[in-house]
Amino acid sequence: MEDKFLTGRLEKKLTKEALEFLVLDDIEWDSKIIEEDITGNEAHTLMLWKTGIISKQEAKKILGALEKVRDLHREGKFKLKPEFEDVHLNVEKFVIDEVGMEIGGKLHTGRSRNDQIILDLRLRLRKEINEILVLLAKVIRTFLSLAEEHLETVMPGYTHLQHAQPITLAHWFTAYVEMFLRDFERIEKTYQFVNLNPLGACALAGTSWPISREETANLLGFDGIQENSLDVVTSRGEELAELLANLSILMVHLSRLSEDLILWTTYEFGMVTFDDSYAMTSSIMPQKKNPDVVELLRGKTSMVISQLLLSLCLMKGLPSGYLKDLQETKPAVFKVTETVKRSLQVVNGLVSTLKINKQRMFELAVCNFSTATDLADFLTRKTGIPFRVSHSIVGTLVRNAFKERKKATEVNIEDLKKASKEVIGKEISVSEEELKKVLNQTTSIKLKKSLGSPNPSEVSKIIEKNRKKIEEKEKNLQARINKLLKAEEKLQSIIKEVLKS
Amino acid sequence: MEDKFLTGRLEKKLTKEALEFLVLDDIEWDSKIIEEDITGNEAHTLMLWKTGIISKQEAKKILGALEKVRDLHREGKFKLKPEFEDVHLNVEKFVIDEVGMEIGGKLHTGRSRNDQIILDLRLRLRKEINEILVLLAKVIRTFLSLAEEHLETVMPGYTHLQHAQPITLAHWFTAYVEMFLRDFERIEKTYQFVNLNPLGACALAGTSWPISREETANLLGFDGIQENSLDVVTSRGEELAELLANLSILMVHLSRLSEDLILWTTYEFGMVTFDDSYAMTSSIMPQKKNPDVVELLRGKTSMVISQLLLSLCLMKGLPSGYLKDLQETKPAVFKVTETVKRSLQVVNGLVSTLKINKQRMFELAVCNFSTATDLADFLTRKTGIPFRVSHSIVGTLVRNAFKERKKATEVNIEDLKKASKEVIGKEISVSEEELKKVLNQTTSIKLKKSLGSPNPSEVSKIIEKNRKKIEEKEKNLQARINKLLKAEEKLQSIIKEVLKS
Amino acid sequence: MEDKFLTGRLEKKLTKEALEFLVLDDIEWDSKIIEEDITGNEAHTLMLWKTGIISKQEAKKILGALEKVRDLHREGKFKLKPEFEDVHLNVEKFVIDEVGMEIGGKLHTGRSRNDQIILDLRLRLRKEINEILVLLAKVIRTFLSLAEEHLETVMPGYTHLQHAQPITLAHWFTAYVEMFLRDFERIEKTYQFVNLNPLGACALAGTSWPISREETANLLGFDGIQENSLDVVTSRGEELAELLANLSILMVHLSRLSEDLILWTTYEFGMVTFDDSYAMTSSIMPQKKNPDVVELLRGKTSMVISQLLLSLCLMKGLPSGYLKDLQETKPAVFKVTETVKRSLQVVNGLVSTLKINKQRMFELAVCNFSTATDLADFLTRKTGIPFRVSHSIVGTLVRNAFKERKKATEVNIEDLKKASKEVIGKEISVSEEELKKVLNQTTSIKLKKSLGSPNPSEVSKIIEKNRKKIEEKEKNLQARINKLLKAEEKLQSIIKEVLKS
Amino acid sequence: MEDKFLTGRLEKKLTKEALEFLVLDDIEWDSKIIEEDITGNEAHTLMLWKTGIISKQEAKKILGALEKVRDLHREGKFKLKPEFEDVHLNVEKFVIDEVGMEIGGKLHTGRSRNDQIILDLRLRLRKEINEILVLLAKVIRTFLSLAEEHLETVMPGYTHLQHAQPITLAHWFTAYVEMFLRDFERIEKTYQFVNLNPLGACALAGTSWPISREETANLLGFDGIQENSLDVVTSRGEELAELLANLSILMVHLSRLSEDLILWTTYEFGMVTFDDSYAMTSSIMPQKKNPDVVELLRGKTSMVISQLLLSLCLMKGLPSGYLKDLQETKPAVFKVTETVKRSLQVVNGLVSTLKINKQRMFELAVCNFSTATDLADFLTRKTGIPFRVSHSIVGTLVRNAFKERKKATEVNIEDLKKASKEVIGKEISVSEEELKKVLNQTTSIKLKKSLGSPNPSEVSKIIEKNRKKIEEKEKNLQARINKLLKAEEKLQSIIKEVLKS
Repeated sequence: MEDKFLTGRLEKKLTKEALEFLVLDDIEWDSKIIEEDITGNEAHTLMLWKTGIISKQEAKKILGALEKVRDLHREGKFKLKPEFEDVHLNVEKFVIDEVGMEIGGKLHTGRSRNDQIILDLRLRLRKEINEILVLLAKVIRTFLSLAEEHLETVMPGYTHLQHAQPITLAHWFTAYVEMFLRDFERIEKTYQFVNLNPLGACALAGTSWPISREETANLLGFDGIQENSLDVVTSRGEELAELLANLSILMVHLSRLSEDLILWTTYEFGMVTFDDSYAMTSSIMPQKKNPDVVELLRGKTSMVISQLLLSLCLMKGLPSGYLKDLQETKPAVFKVTETVKRSLQVVNGLVSTLKINKQRMFELAVCNFSTATDLADFLTRKTGIPFRVSHSIVGTLVRNAFKERKKATEVNIEDLKKASKEVIGKEISVSEEELKKVLNQTTSIKLKKSLGSPNPSEVSKIIEKNRKKIEEKEKNLQARINKLLKAEEKLQSIIKEVLKS
Repeated sequence: MEDKFLTGRLEKKLTKEALEFLVLDDIEWDSKIIEEDITGNEAHTLMLWKTGIISKQEAKKILGALEKVRDLHREGKFKLKPEFEDVHLNVEKFVIDEVGMEIGGKLHTGRSRNDQIILDLRLRLRKEINEILVLLAKVIRTFLSLAEEHLETVMPGYTHLQHAQPITLAHWFTAYVEMFLRDFERIEKTYQFVNLNPLGACALAGTSWPISREETANLLGFDGIQENSLDVVTSRGEELAELLANLSILMVHLSRLSEDLILWTTYEFGMVTFDDSYAMTSSIMPQKKNPDVVELLRGKTSMVISQLLLSLCLMKGLPSGYLKDLQETKPAVFKVTETVKRSLQVVNGLVSTLKINKQRMFELAVCNFSTATDLADFLTRKTGIPFRVSHSIVGTLVRNAFKERKKATEVNIEDLKKASKEVIGKEISVSEEELKKVLNQTTSIKLKKSLGSPNPSEVSKIIEKNRKKIEEKEKNLQARINKLLKAEEKLQSIIKEVLKS
Repeated sequence: MEDKFLTGRLEKKLTKEALEFLVLDDIEWDSKIIEEDITGNEAHTLMLWKTGIISKQEAKKILGALEKVRDLHREGKFKLKPEFEDVHLNVEKFVIDEVGMEIGGKLHTGRSRNDQIILDLRLRLRKEINEILVLLAKVIRTFLSLAEEHLETVMPGYTHLQHAQPITLAHWFTAYVEMFLRDFERIEKTYQFVNLNPLGACALAGTSWPISREETANLLGFDGIQENSLDVVTSRGEELAELLANLSILMVHLSRLSEDLILWTTYEFGMVTFDDSYAMTSSIMPQKKNPDVVELLRGKTSMVISQLLLSLCLMKGLPSGYLKDLQETKPAVFKVTETVKRSLQVVNGLVSTLKINKQRMFELAVCNFSTATDLADFLTRKTGIPFRVSHSIVGTLVRNAFKERKKATEVNIEDLKKASKEVIGKEISVSEEELKKVLNQTTSIKLKKSLGSPNPSEVSKIIEKNRKKIEEKEKNLQARINKLLKAEEKLQSIIKEVLKS
Repeated sequence: MEDKFLTGRLEKKLTKEALEFLVLDDIEWDSKIIEEDITGNEAHTLMLWKTGIISKQEAKKILGALEKVRDLHREGKFKLKPEFEDVHLNVEKFVIDEVGMEIGGKLHTGRSRNDQIILDLRLRLRKEINEILVLLAKVIRTFLSLAEEHLETVMPGYTHLQHAQPITLAHWFTAYVEMFLRDFERIEKTYQFVNLNPLGACALAGTSWPISREETANLLGFDGIQENSLDVVTSRGEELAELLANLSILMVHLSRLSEDLILWTTYEFGMVTFDDSYAMTSSIMPQKKNPDVVELLRGKTSMVISQLLLSLCLMKGLPSGYLKDLQETKPAVFKVTETVKRSLQVVNGLVSTLKINKQRMFELAVCNFSTATDLADFLTRKTGIPFRVSHSIVGTLVRNAFKERKKATEVNIEDLKKASKEVIGKEISVSEEELKKVLNQTTSIKLKKSLGSPNPSEVSKIIEKNRKKIEEKEKNLQARINKLLKAEEKLQSIIKEVLKS
């Protein structure tokens, strides 16, 4: 058995350019799942022994070799060789070289690289998902704390990026909390799919060996087994697409957050200032303080979306069963999860250190007729004219104020009377005091009564509710993480026993 | 109040090209949610009355006008006018014209078009989702029935579109069943998000009117309320993106199914024949029978994926709050759901009437060494040589057979001996009978033992399990549908009462 | 010959759901190319006569029927019937019904629907491309005129959306002009591909009839012939993808323009005001003036991009030759070109009527250290210290100013001396006057010397150059349009002659 | 000046997670353009000297340091440090450390990282484009040679993946040649845009230094200058998007080629065999010979398309000027060009070594009524019945044959008579001999007369024409490559002179 020990019916090695095209990039990614591949090999070996397919002695030898390759790997001394195509053959070749073909040649009994790669990727993905959720929970807590702090911090609410109505910063923070909680739930749902055992599907048709898929499921901490073997092999892209879709939506939320902050930190808006440790300057313009972090967050959102497209476009039109095309989805597993983790970390730090310019927020909420709706509502309530009419009167009032370059704070009762006359032909009986009071934005927020409105009492309820929600979610998440840790510990303790025997 | 009754502070009408650009396409789509808009108006009106914001008399008048506009609409006589921008203003204008500004002008109290459009779209989306799930359940049942019929129909299993190992048609059908069940669950999950009441979020900040969001939630059959009003308005694209992602994955499954069938119906594969009622011919080539349906299914998959990208790319980088960009996601609501429904219907019909060429399937499963893996497994079991070695021997056997242009059915014991010598330097002790038996594909399937393999007993178990699963799911689906129907009935009966009072 | 006159070897009609799925949407789009289909039929008929495949009498009869169907169509009386699948069969069926099978049955000689649909779409696309270019040229002229007007209108230049250096509005306008000119050239290039004759490729293999592809090319005003018949049929999606890519980039430019304007029209930036005829208000907030047009432009950009992805994702992995999937690219032909035309029209109107707030622009360019780079350059030039050092001194100066809440206009020579001491340990010999002069932004622009800078003399040169460029381009465009008009006229005059004969 | 020598007005370093997020990935990509960055620095330095901004002595020192950093880099000893953010600051820092701040601090005079990065990327992109075109030309030549070899190799032409009409392999090869030639032209067009000098645009507003953009353009072999400095900075993503669109279409062509070959190499089609050096086997199924190369080509097509989406989605909605988001487009520059180059190389090798099974191709072209259209055409020509009628007769003939399980070669004159009677109520006067002759596919191809048809004489003309075209194109390409080489040589010789002085 020479270099390329897996030749099957083929008589030639790949040409140099074919090897480069097929393996060179891919094996770089494979080098990131060496741990997972070894763990999968260990569980498979134990199962082969427990089902009597190999002897305990054989299992011991193989497990010893696997222990060795892991040690080498952790010392940075195990390099994957392109001529053995991928991580699976590299590890198998190592085992065979170590313990001889007679025993090592039995390792690949009752499985295929098709189920092996899915296994490795799931072992990795479930870990990544848990890490993402831990970080997301942390962000949610940060936002909840900040919301609590800013229950009464009035700011302009925007629609069409124009001043709409006053809201509070707490209201804004909790809006993102609700988005993130939905993200959390979507990603949790994907975990349920990812944490099913694919091993034993083999190439596509299972095997005639009396393997136990339950055994490997238990050893590896899976919550269940994905049954139909053809479905397992065909689903490789599906679990990724589902995850990428959910992470894309999460990133879209981060990009909207970024856009808000990019705007707020302009000279013109001036509502927040980033800490210097989250800003960069220019090589030529010494006065610059640029919001690079949030810009790049927005940019990376496009990257994550593009990986979702890649996976869907790639699977579209493929027949069932495994096809090499699917290899091209591998980079997304690593690139996207790392990007999302880094994004959440940096968001948490950046938002925690944000300096809020409350005065500017207040000023912007006051000066530009954000409370016009309150005035219209008030006119209707006070005088009984229909909302559609009071809407028209206030619209006219504002139009006139703009013409006379009056700010909202400068409008007086005469202006209202004039507008009223224009629209309904008569004055409206409201006092100067009432007008002023309604146009004041603090009152505005307190006046809001509807469920989910920026009224501090409403926002407080939402904070309370969501705090409980995230606590519950974190508890469950920790339970899932612990389950995996225990399975890993148990696996290693069984191996130790076998090795000692 | 002339033509454009909603002018606010603006002094001019839109120019012709601005109106065309902003309204002309969009109002076509709006004309598809007139029913939903009226229903939403009705619930809002009842709530305004129940909370004392308007009087019963006022409610009665408005409800009468709404009844009238619905009648007109159902007779095809209510055409939306572009100068009133959208369905909401068109309906409101109708009501005002009908009952006068004094009363009609109160209809828009305590809400905004921002929450209204989300309401209308959700009322529609939840209906579409239910219809999709009904059709998907039907497809799943059809596939399960066909699987039952074809438990022993042997066919070649493919990986890389090359013969891999024999499977059964039942195994193939149930693989798709498992995919569709995951699709079902994903879409169900989205329903939970869609069936929350957005009404009362108003523009973004709720309202100072004492509205009851619980009341409208009950009247409209919602399962709950989406609380934070800024989140409601910001989430318009999110619910759609989530749905489109799930429908994209479903369509990818249909496109993979299509690709399988397109190949199988070629002259070369010849494994299935479509019924003439699902095929088209050529305007020039009289012999043609083209699988247009499955080709177009594959094509429409790209369309659905593109709508997902539209929604994500559109939201990326938008600040929070409503922005006009979101209008451009509206077509997807209708186009995609209709496409998916039609796709499921046509798949069901096409697959039900498919003519299976069992003989050809069998022939292809036999002739081309699909059972080589069984042979390798057998050699290992019989003689104790490691799998990696028997893999090599069988690989050599096949290579030689190809050189001598022998089919799998023509290989004999001498060939095996020769291959064995080449690889391990000695013959292997297997009989001609054993060799023939193992290379026979029927045995192959029966020999498979692993959970989820094509062994008929394994597939039967999966059929059984999934049949129960889909029954359970259909029951819950029916309960959801009934809940909506009852809410609708109750709403109409309350209205009738008010109108009679 | 009954209803479905094209049955070939098939024995059944399509089922209802198959017909709906395959035809119902598609035939709506087909109804937009009835004119093109008739024109193509006319040219084909004349060619059949000129090459002797049919007689003049036969040609006359067919042309008469085609004239009739066009008249009916123009009167809105020719409705496409789904049971005849598409526009081609509908028109052919009309001709056959009109002049009998004996003669009408000859119309489809030597062609296929595969080349016919490509022909129809190209006849339409080339027209659309020309219309788009006419509108784009108009926008370019508008921008050039405005640039001329605003050569000295100073505004803040942004990078990272932070004040970078002062530029002029003319510099900004001409940046877009350069983008649009590249768009123009890219789209022109696609025209060259689109304006090649596909007719005569037939289904994929040409024909044994002695047709003349040169003749139809001439009659239809094509610039040449796309030769290889298999390539013609396979290229259906390619020409569209090329066009959609170019239009996507154009739309990206419009979306960036939109983003600029959306920001500039916020209360906070306040640099421009839209004319009321390009703004909308809110149904609830009477003070609102929303920039709906530019928001929707940004939104529609995602739509155009999504259509590009549709076309690429759809073609990916298709084998060569025609496949039904390609039908799904048809909507893009109409939707995207219409969207782009409307977008250009509305941009032209909106920008033409924009009210520029020069004072605010100036103010923002002055107050926030935009000229810090000029100061660093000046220090280097004046005193010989390296740029990297002066960059550091000015950075320190600005940092200190921010701490002391000083505006750029309030900084004095003492501040500079202090910063200098901090960085290089000694004062720097610059006068108060020099400092003030350099920090003044008008000087800044005039000081700029490099090719392409905002210096009015540089911008003037660019305006001049681009004015010539667009004039040249419009001349060539007009020549292309005229060529098509003349071909059309000639075609009709030949037909008239034949009909009279 | 400590570690982070570029602090400007900022007082803190980036936090660890911000540095990781902003720099860690990106600087990996930057390490691929160190050569380009040094070259750009050299040209800039020479220009600063020639325009008198720095002295010859200063230039000499700086150039010496640049020479040194290049040597280190080529020896693998120059590692980019994340704390200096990017390649530009790393190189500048090296120079300053080497020659002191007094001189090295002048290197960054009159430029910015904004124009520097665009310069570096264009220097790289133009090289990549040329390499891609060289490889594409090679593929075109290979296809032309193979076409010449297979002028008379009859194969089934497919539409809808069903047998349509016989074509030749030469016809198929030349179809791809025509696609590739269009790809060539599109990519050439992008080169024109890429090979314009961006240097001197600085941050966005040019500079007050008397730099010469013509000088750097000449030194670097650019064909011209991109003028407007704001446009330069804004266009960073545009040139990439244009290139990615053109490469996406090229990859779509390769994926369609792949799909053809994947099908042809199945057992069922059996028309071609790959050389073993372009195939892989299975770890479990020893008989497998998988077409991994073409599958992965199809997979990588989705990757390239996804990068196009990334770039468009990323730019959408960005304001003008540089923004950090654009950094995220950098990976595409390297990943996509490398992928395309490897793809072209592997396609060339794979197609060159393809084993064609002429007999199987012929057999498939004969057996399944591919010449039905020829028969219909013949009936029309022979007897004068309209094509639409003969189409119907032949359709009936085929339908009957299928029912009686007759192959095309088994159909006789009685069958034709029967079909004729069914359709037109009478027999048609054609002889058995004529029928057989027409149904023979060799004749079919020779009978084809139309321009661009598979008739060998037509294909020969296309080969001839395209051979000339590609020769011409290669000549121009070589001229462009030489121009760059000469500029590079001249630059280095000037530097040598200065260093010697």
